[in-house]
Amino acid sequence: MERIGFIGLGLMGKPMARNLLKAGYPLLVYNRSRAPMEELAAEGAGLAESPAAIAQGSDVVITCLPDSPEVEAVVLGEDGVVAGARSGLLFIDHSTIAPATARKLHLALQHKEIEALDAPVSGGDIGAQQGTLSIMVGGSEAAFQRALPMLQVMGQNIVHIGAAGAGQVAKACNQVVVALTVQAVAEALTLAQKSGVDPAKVRSALLGGFAQSRVLDVHGQRMLEGRFDPGFKLHLHRKDMGIVLQTAREVQLPLLGAAQVTELMNALLAQGLGDLDNAAMITLYRQLGGLVDAAGGSDK
Amino acid sequence: MERIGFIGLGLMGKPMARNLLKAGYPLLVYNRSRAPMEELAAEGAGLAESPAAIAQGSDVVITCLPDSPEVEAVVLGEDGVVAGARSGLLFIDHSTIAPATARKLHLALQHKEIEALDAPVSGGDIGAQQGTLSIMVGGSEAAFQRALPMLQVMGQNIVHIGAAGAGQVAKACNQVVVALTVQAVAEALTLAQKSGVDPAKVRSALLGGFAQSRVLDVHGQRMLEGRFDPGFKLHLHRKDMGIVLQTAREVQLPLLGAAQVTELMNALLAQGLGDLDNAAMITLYRQLGGLVDAAGGSDK
Repeated sequence: MERIGFIGLGLMGKPMARNLLKAGYPLLVYNRSRAPMEELAAEGAGLAESPAAIAQGSDVVITCLPDSPEVEAVVLGEDGVVAGARSGLLFIDHSTIAPATARKLHLALQHKEIEALDAPVSGGDIGAQQGTLSIMVGGSEAAFQRALPMLQVMGQNIVHIGAAGAGQVAKACNQVVVALTVQAVAEALTLAQKSGVDPAKVRSALLGGFAQSRVLDVHGQRMLEGRFDPGFKLHLHRKDMGIVLQTAREVQLPLLGAAQVTELMNALLAQGLGDLDNAAMITLYRQLGGLVDAAGGSDK
Repeated sequence: MERIGFIGLGLMGKPMARNLLKAGYPLLVYNRSRAPMEELAAEGAGLAESPAAIAQGSDVVITCLPDSPEVEAVVLGEDGVVAGARSGLLFIDHSTIAPATARKLHLALQHKEIEALDAPVSGGDIGAQQGTLSIMVGGSEAAFQRALPMLQVMGQNIVHIGAAGAGQVAKACNQVVVALTVQAVAEALTLAQKSGVDPAKVRSALLGGFAQSRVLDVHGQRMLEGRFDPGFKLHLHRKDMGIVLQTAREVQLPLLGAAQVTELMNALLAQGLGDLDNAAMITLYRQLGGLVDAAGGSDK
């Protein structure tokens, strides 16, 4: 079995690393803070003191980090993956970062004879724990085939989208669709409420027709219950929408809907609601319609 | 069995009336143009010369008309339903009209001791033919129970949403969600294409995660194929969005997303594309991104 080094043991990374460990892979871990490393060490993982040390002791290096700068630093920085890697290493990045950054990393690693896959995931911390993530992969077919047994430990719906960066493009598309569908459901359920009609009945009726979506089902229910524990935090979705709009600008495509919904997320972040689930979008519509005060609190 | 009078034998109404006839209901029909009346007469329906004559010969009057003015004229106008109705008549309107108009008609009919249901449908001409429509119903429980056996002949997902007008509110909510989800899918698939990534692979990957929707499945496929034969025509969806925005103004709720996507529909109508399926929304994004000329035609 390939020896895996895992960097980034956050809400997503830790359960993903744990699943690889449970599947029997020799695992070396590194994280900025110490606690999750020791947690996994108690379950059998080895500890490394830097990304370079991870690369020295592994055949495959996997990262799961918050954003582009962190991934660049971990891969290209001092004591980074490249500093410790041998030719033949496979690098898999599960972070959601800009497609342009992913392509830049692919090229930098190619020069060192390191194969890379951009492999962002969707499905949240529950998907990470249960090993049911969707994984969108960019990179060569050979690298994809080599990675597949490991990806199948962490996810279920695994699609090889295309060449370097294609996984990140697919993830950007995913975030556009989720954001606009959340907005759609927030508008519909608030319209029902303001019209004196039971939003729960409307959700139920709409699930049976062309308005059906997983967001109407899951986020719609969260909106009805006013239950906004994440899930997927608004400030992370806002970060991803920044990637979307930057990418759209680079390819010269005006994404009117994505731009608007990003501004609505900005408003929610300005109100200090960034740690809520993205279903909290409905809070803004309830404010706009005068159903709650601007502090997001009490019903009138 | 109740004697049914059916007014409005268009793309939706004709197959719905036919299904009632096949189920054994005595059926009297009226339509502005003669041809569909004679088609159903050949299958066993009786013909009436006015909405009033329909009402005189029926226990239940069903309408399926394009918009609010047509329904008002057919019900309240000279030789209209009210002119010919006896007390105890049940009136079911399957048209998509403004909730405010539906409530006004309920009241006007109540004064004549006629019970009314607003019962807009979703599911398109294919759903009408196959008897698989979603039907969203507003009105009293007694009227709903009386109508249910007939509704079950025409539809499958039949939900009693609430009091008078509630069915139309649910339909308005439905049209908001469908419109914004179509926009979401159009933005995502164009972003993929402009980024040099196969939109078909992106659609396939996204169907396995939180971006899943019936619109991504059905309309997404239509967008990939550039196949815009309706389906649901853009100019009808635009008409429904007019109802949405009017209703939202009446209840004082700013629907930012619904307003934006309605303007995009206006642009498509201005280009003469109103008879295409609403999936043709992607045509506009392809124009915005410079992938087609403004005439909507050839690829560059």
